[in-house]
Amino acid sequence: MIIDIHGHYTTEPQAVHLFRDKQLAGLADPARKPTTTDLGISDEALVKSVEPQLKFQKERGSDVTVFSPRASGMAHHVGTEAIGVQWSRVSNDLIHRICTLLPENFVGVGQLPQFPGAPIENCIPELERVVNELGFVGVNLNPDPSGGYWQAPPLTDRYWYPIYERMCDLEVPAMIHVTSSCNPAVHHTGAHYLNADTTAFMQLLQGDLFKDFPQLRFVIPHGGGAVPFHWGRYRGLAQDMKKPLLTEHLLKNVFFDTCVYHYPGIELMTRVIPVDNILFASEMVGAVKGIDPETGHHFDDTRRYVDQVKALSAEDRRKIFEGNARRVYPRLDRTLARRGRK
Amino acid sequence: MIIDIHGHYTTEPQAVHLFRDKQLAGLADPARKPTTTDLGISDEALVKSVEPQLKFQKERGSDVTVFSPRASGMAHHVGTEAIGVQWSRVSNDLIHRICTLLPENFVGVGQLPQFPGAPIENCIPELERVVNELGFVGVNLNPDPSGGYWQAPPLTDRYWYPIYERMCDLEVPAMIHVTSSCNPAVHHTGAHYLNADTTAFMQLLQGDLFKDFPQLRFVIPHGGGAVPFHWGRYRGLAQDMKKPLLTEHLLKNVFFDTCVYHYPGIELMTRVIPVDNILFASEMVGAVKGIDPETGHHFDDTRRYVDQVKALSAEDRRKIFEGNARRVYPRLDRTLARRGRK
Repeated sequence: MIIDIHGHYTTEPQAVHLFRDKQLAGLADPARKPTTTDLGISDEALVKSVEPQLKFQKERGSDVTVFSPRASGMAHHVGTEAIGVQWSRVSNDLIHRICTLLPENFVGVGQLPQFPGAPIENCIPELERVVNELGFVGVNLNPDPSGGYWQAPPLTDRYWYPIYERMCDLEVPAMIHVTSSCNPAVHHTGAHYLNADTTAFMQLLQGDLFKDFPQLRFVIPHGGGAVPFHWGRYRGLAQDMKKPLLTEHLLKNVFFDTCVYHYPGIELMTRVIPVDNILFASEMVGAVKGIDPETGHHFDDTRRYVDQVKALSAEDRRKIFEGNARRVYPRLDRTLARRGRK
Repeated sequence: MIIDIHGHYTTEPQAVHLFRDKQLAGLADPARKPTTTDLGISDEALVKSVEPQLKFQKERGSDVTVFSPRASGMAHHVGTEAIGVQWSRVSNDLIHRICTLLPENFVGVGQLPQFPGAPIENCIPELERVVNELGFVGVNLNPDPSGGYWQAPPLTDRYWYPIYERMCDLEVPAMIHVTSSCNPAVHHTGAHYLNADTTAFMQLLQGDLFKDFPQLRFVIPHGGGAVPFHWGRYRGLAQDMKKPLLTEHLLKNVFFDTCVYHYPGIELMTRVIPVDNILFASEMVGAVKGIDPETGHHFDDTRRYVDQVKALSAEDRRKIFEGNARRVYPRLDRTLARRGRK
């Protein structure tokens, strides 16, 4: 089977945006706050809203998408912490309903109510809720809740340890994923996302986090930002810093997805990153929506690129498409097994 | 001939660091300010300080290095604007002396006294001095003088226009290069440099700067950060934003260097970036100093990677090693021509 580990709910019904507008309008005028968190979206409307994803799954031959709220919609830097808590619950509940309505197609990953400067402990109740009550298999963790100004301590700082402890207890990995950028110098999908991937990897390289958390697992999306392209630089920096080889130092705990939107990028990735560390993903419907005039196919139809890499064996491909995801997300494996997909 | 367009003076004599310490100590105690900008470094000491670079030039077969002050040493975010003006002059003067002592080996590129929040006009006197008086062929332009917090407007903002106008008048390109990071979340050579490359490219993609400045030229170092690895993403984002093809929109004005420290990275780059936009560089002695145990050669011996790319013709290689640099840096071309290197 083919598991796409990186999909966001980017096709929400208008009611979601209207709710968010009311939430934020309430900051200026409390009279405009939403009076209910019931968005009034029917099951039919929810199913209809994900038709684009279902169509792409069918056309491209993927089976199940690991699905989380719109990444740029998390906007941890906006409003107040209380608004973020409510917004996370509403967003995660929508994902849960979709995963319940279409259990063959979607498995949930949660948004956390991070807030700049707030203790990460404050996210633990929502982490526990999405895993224990909603059956989610992972969370998105934002290394820069300031939205493009990098005010948070690095991921190796003890600030983050409480959430790591609970993630390990619950056996859920985190995808390291920033949200929208409120910094006019930094475009979200064209710079901030890739920079965050790169920055997070380097933070981990500098530290020794996995000595403290050998069970902790991170997925770095968008092919790891700049990392595979600069794999020699990172091997060299680790060596200069007297760190172990990256395979030992990081690659038991750090994984990369295949959201790289052209064949040469995916081919490079498979050459330098061990196959056990690559997880198939497309981020559809996501950052790049168009058709590549050079190929006649969607830029984000990443399965085609993986299929084209001749150096991959059938077993390699099985790992990238399915096996690695089931290993990195143990709760995903169990969810699929319960549905008869051993 | 082989021109390495990206070298920094990272082997400065101790006297340079002592001067900088005095400068910054003077912020707390004016009695400790340096009493002179004469660092007391003899010509012999200067020539001796660049022996590592001369040795690598000889061993690796490059002829001339386009040489600028230590990138992380620029530290535009440190101290006061007046200190930065003095520091830039001292740093540029050292480069000038080296280029004068070893004219076959080094051609100068300047550091600008940028300061967070200060008008970019304040850099024009030093720009004119390094070009008109010191014979430099380019400058380093820092898109984030805040040192890792991204407080400056994007490079397409009119804030920057005065320096672009003078650069065009003087026929000098800028290498887009940040300096050290004062942000504990963002490592300088492992994250900030690459992020800046990526961010700058996306800023240019979003804007239409080269309509206003068709003669302006930027070199994005470190292989363009994440850009070539995500070339499909950038082509797709440009298409979604109704921009022209990147070849039209940016590649008449934006160039990438080859500071990518492994063969697969360089190979990818030559596959997706037109050969006319790739300039040879190694950044030696720079970010990664060690020997790659997988090859037995220095990570930053980038000539080996370019030599290995079989798909490049002799003419392609001549462009990457020499021709493109002479076109992008017209003053470099004239300097070399005056020395009989037509």
